[in-house]
Amino acid sequence: MILHGYWRSSASYRVRIALGLKGVSFEQVTHDLRTSAHKSADYGFINPQHLVPALETDDGTSLIQSPAILEWLEERYPSPPLLPETSYDRAIVRTMAAMIGCDIHPLNNLRVLASLKTDLHAQQHQVDAWTARWISEGFSALETLLERHSGEFAFGNAPTLADCYIVPQVYSARRFNVDLSPFPLVQKIDGTAALLPAFAAAHPMAQPDADKS
Amino acid sequence: MILHGYWRSSASYRVRIALGLKGVSFEQVTHDLRTSAHKSADYGFINPQHLVPALETDDGTSLIQSPAILEWLEERYPSPPLLPETSYDRAIVRTMAAMIGCDIHPLNNLRVLASLKTDLHAQQHQVDAWTARWISEGFSALETLLERHSGEFAFGNAPTLADCYIVPQVYSARRFNVDLSPFPLVQKIDGTAALLPAFAAAHPMAQPDADKS
Repeated sequence: MILHGYWRSSASYRVRIALGLKGVSFEQVTHDLRTSAHKSADYGFINPQHLVPALETDDGTSLIQSPAILEWLEERYPSPPLLPETSYDRAIVRTMAAMIGCDIHPLNNLRVLASLKTDLHAQQHQVDAWTARWISEGFSALETLLERHSGEFAFGNAPTLADCYIVPQVYSARRFNVDLSPFPLVQKIDGTAALLPAFAAAHPMAQPDADKS
Repeated sequence: MILHGYWRSSASYRVRIALGLKGVSFEQVTHDLRTSAHKSADYGFINPQHLVPALETDDGTSLIQSPAILEWLEERYPSPPLLPETSYDRAIVRTMAAMIGCDIHPLNNLRVLASLKTDLHAQQHQVDAWTARWISEGFSALETLLERHSGEFAFGNAPTLADCYIVPQVYSARRFNVDLSPFPLVQKIDGTAALLPAFAAAHPMAQPDADKS
């Protein structure tokens, strides 16, 4: 299996975590978003959106969009499960995932922040405030769900898809210097997850294409 | 079952379509986003994000986030299916859904467009260009997937979750006067879907809270 990604891409990071938790081995092909390497015609055939990640599976198909890849992984590699058993519980986990995947991350990714600067002439402090606003609003609602449903992890005491979204979003929030003190459970879960080998191996700084300068 | 929504909310529209396709009857409670009715403390208990939609189920639970609600509906009301049979095909449908749910709609909803104006002092023509850009980029990639996988509907010849996302996004694109001529399959599928009673009944203008002035 080949994961097309980029070390600092939040959506690639989610998939790396899930592959690790499932014990699925994979190779990585990196696409340097800063130099627009993902905009090549060759990659466009794999991913017409020219975004990362994309997963080339062992049966020769290509999957894109991390929410779809994660559900595919759950269906094809059901053990260990990353969704709980009942439909209601599964909905809670998917809600936490969507809070990040639909309401935080899309507003803070590279192409959107670049557009704020280029097209709307936003200054850096305005971009920082924009980023902090969506992360803080989203984490605030997430914290409420964590109060209701978390244990050692976001939902109960084993990692789920929710943790695959939370940990990369926390990493991103720290990069943007967002104050995480109002979100103790988000921070606690991030800390618990960091102790698991699958999360550690998926960390951006552990990737071969990481820029350590 | 009670659907908390708003006639013009794209995410509420998705859920209305799916409920209709599944033949599930429901009542509606409207929250006028323009007057911030969704920011009440009472509604905050149901949805700590203070967004629509939320679905109060017959067993007394509340579900939020349309992607999670739609997957819950599919699990609890499997017939007719809104996801195809194989994991790969399911991933394609979920990819189409995520292209809209993660990469188009989050950038064009009310709170985000309001923030562009208020926080970044964007002019109306800049907001229009912003909206058109993300819809056009997303629909362009979606059109490629539709070339590969569509029939009468987005995936094959029966409606799926993908259509539940596409039709509201087309409605929204038209509101924003986005040129849809480069996306003939997107338009064709929207046209096919409009003929089905579930899609017609879910249309914003068919809702009791629609502003027909």
